[in-house]
Amino acid sequence: MANETTNKQVILRDFVVGFPKETDLYVTSGTLTLRVPEGSTGVLVKNLYLSCDPYMRGRMKKSRPGDGYVEAFQPGSPISGFGVCRVVDSGNPDFKKGDLVWGITGWEEYSLISAPENLFKIKHTDGIPLSYYTGLLGIAGMTAYVGFFEVCSPKKGDTVFVSAASGAVGQLVGQFAKLTGCYVVGSAGSKEKVDLLKNKFKFDDAFNYKEEPDLDAALKRYFSDGIDIYFENVGGKMLDAVLLNMRRHGRIAACGMISQYNLQQPEGVHNLAQIIFKEIRMVGFLLTEYFRQYPKYLEMVLPLIREGKIVYVEDTAEGLENAAGALVGLFSGKNIGKQVVVVAHE
Amino acid sequence: MANETTNKQVILRDFVVGFPKETDLYVTSGTLTLRVPEGSTGVLVKNLYLSCDPYMRGRMKKSRPGDGYVEAFQPGSPISGFGVCRVVDSGNPDFKKGDLVWGITGWEEYSLISAPENLFKIKHTDGIPLSYYTGLLGIAGMTAYVGFFEVCSPKKGDTVFVSAASGAVGQLVGQFAKLTGCYVVGSAGSKEKVDLLKNKFKFDDAFNYKEEPDLDAALKRYFSDGIDIYFENVGGKMLDAVLLNMRRHGRIAACGMISQYNLQQPEGVHNLAQIIFKEIRMVGFLLTEYFRQYPKYLEMVLPLIREGKIVYVEDTAEGLENAAGALVGLFSGKNIGKQVVVVAHE
Repeated sequence: MANETTNKQVILRDFVVGFPKETDLYVTSGTLTLRVPEGSTGVLVKNLYLSCDPYMRGRMKKSRPGDGYVEAFQPGSPISGFGVCRVVDSGNPDFKKGDLVWGITGWEEYSLISAPENLFKIKHTDGIPLSYYTGLLGIAGMTAYVGFFEVCSPKKGDTVFVSAASGAVGQLVGQFAKLTGCYVVGSAGSKEKVDLLKNKFKFDDAFNYKEEPDLDAALKRYFSDGIDIYFENVGGKMLDAVLLNMRRHGRIAACGMISQYNLQQPEGVHNLAQIIFKEIRMVGFLLTEYFRQYPKYLEMVLPLIREGKIVYVEDTAEGLENAAGALVGLFSGKNIGKQVVVVAHE
Repeated sequence: MANETTNKQVILRDFVVGFPKETDLYVTSGTLTLRVPEGSTGVLVKNLYLSCDPYMRGRMKKSRPGDGYVEAFQPGSPISGFGVCRVVDSGNPDFKKGDLVWGITGWEEYSLISAPENLFKIKHTDGIPLSYYTGLLGIAGMTAYVGFFEVCSPKKGDTVFVSAASGAVGQLVGQFAKLTGCYVVGSAGSKEKVDLLKNKFKFDDAFNYKEEPDLDAALKRYFSDGIDIYFENVGGKMLDAVLLNMRRHGRIAACGMISQYNLQQPEGVHNLAQIIFKEIRMVGFLLTEYFRQYPKYLEMVLPLIREGKIVYVEDTAEGLENAAGALVGLFSGKNIGKQVVVVAHE
């Protein structure tokens, strides 16, 4: 057969309970014809970079009714997520061979995307790594942008706390906050990450939460007058300590609660009455209805990247063989910066 | 001495830990000159009706820095709260003898109010009980009005759940929701209260939370398609069950968490990640900055009362001797409707 090729895939072994392990996924290899099926309006893409995102944990478990916002992965099938791809063949007039796109794709070498209208085309320019479209110029960037500017109503002089601050989203929230004239402190889980926050991302300060037996005391050390804005990535004990330190009319953007996703029973948060006493607004958000703001975001952020006013740190795993470890590593904080899987450098 | 009178007072014995008891307060009697001191711009009032409010629990404990929004009561001194009073003597040009007012006053027969600019004047009209200014036409009414209309963004057809629904605020939220065209269910702690919700306040349905071993299942029974708006008065386990049943873009007005105020360690709430998955907005609010809307509220609510479209149930305790029991009873749900203390019928 002409254009037949092997296609490595990352498969979910079974629904996951508790902390995911590398062995919950495995790599297999099939074959694939490098052509869109007759009559299809889909596109066939070569996957270049895949994004490892904490929300994917939710897709690794059996879904229950009313459970969440994403469909479960299917055991025995390749998992999927956001990625950067090059179009290899197209049955769709809006896409042609050679186009660069980002959007939901499979964790495999080649994917047939049957609904390409959800893909974003990449107008690639020199000096900006293509992998950024899995993070800074993809959903992590949009999440930081929407969560900080739309949900947190920031203003100059606000005090801002970011948890999981060196992660894909946190590092950007901190930099956006600095550009807005806020005082920003971040927490992370190692000395190396804390150094990154202070030296690379220019947070005003940062601490290693694993070395703080009393998170409330730690926050009081950095926020003697309290916190105006909390960008929530972790949940649990950290949220409880933050609530004690919020200021009147504080805003909490609930973006993620990564510390809770692998627990059978999430931790209890005890200090919610502070939401009343301090008139706090806590808002959960998903990107779904904010994607129309993507061009506006690019318009803002691309010049900042070119001028060096926004920097971005990625942690890359090479090859689909290392994809499972990279994804699972998110939940133990193994990654330093945005975790990317390189499927092919082209 | 001319115009000297006895003045019964309700005194806080000591800061309270855990559930308050009647014996945490005691009644004493002093004397008072029925005249504003020379040079004072205060007013001397005769207290008629006193309001028992859950937030007063927070004032019965020793305050810690950053603890909350209200000052602690002083052990050995009379406690204070909202009440309806008649001016007996005035050193202030804006008030004259005989005026009816409501606002913060002492739990005693007569009070000298040194900052009367915070009092609201009552334009009393026939057919409306004066005691309503401790509730329906006072802070409970304003709390229901602001919390429901400003915080919850209600629209016709929304599904609304109200906890502590027969209380001072809850009974009004339910009625406002019905007037808006919402489907409303309330929870309360006795059969009598549930009957009141269904028959008197015209909630679509109601249940006794004490008879529900599984609050999640109870909510699913009444909200098969989920809850758009939760008016939060209780916190703890109820909030946890509600989070599982909220709909996408749900709104939670955090008004009170009465089930938690007497606990040394508040209960843990485990399902907060639902705030993210369902894009929920949870907003704590206090009346402080909404008082300017009071005239607008009266304009809306007075005709509704006169037309019988809003009804109000009060539970009255007669005399300062019964005030401690009335206040403490709030925390075991003894009261049916708004708890008022009658100091004097005039």
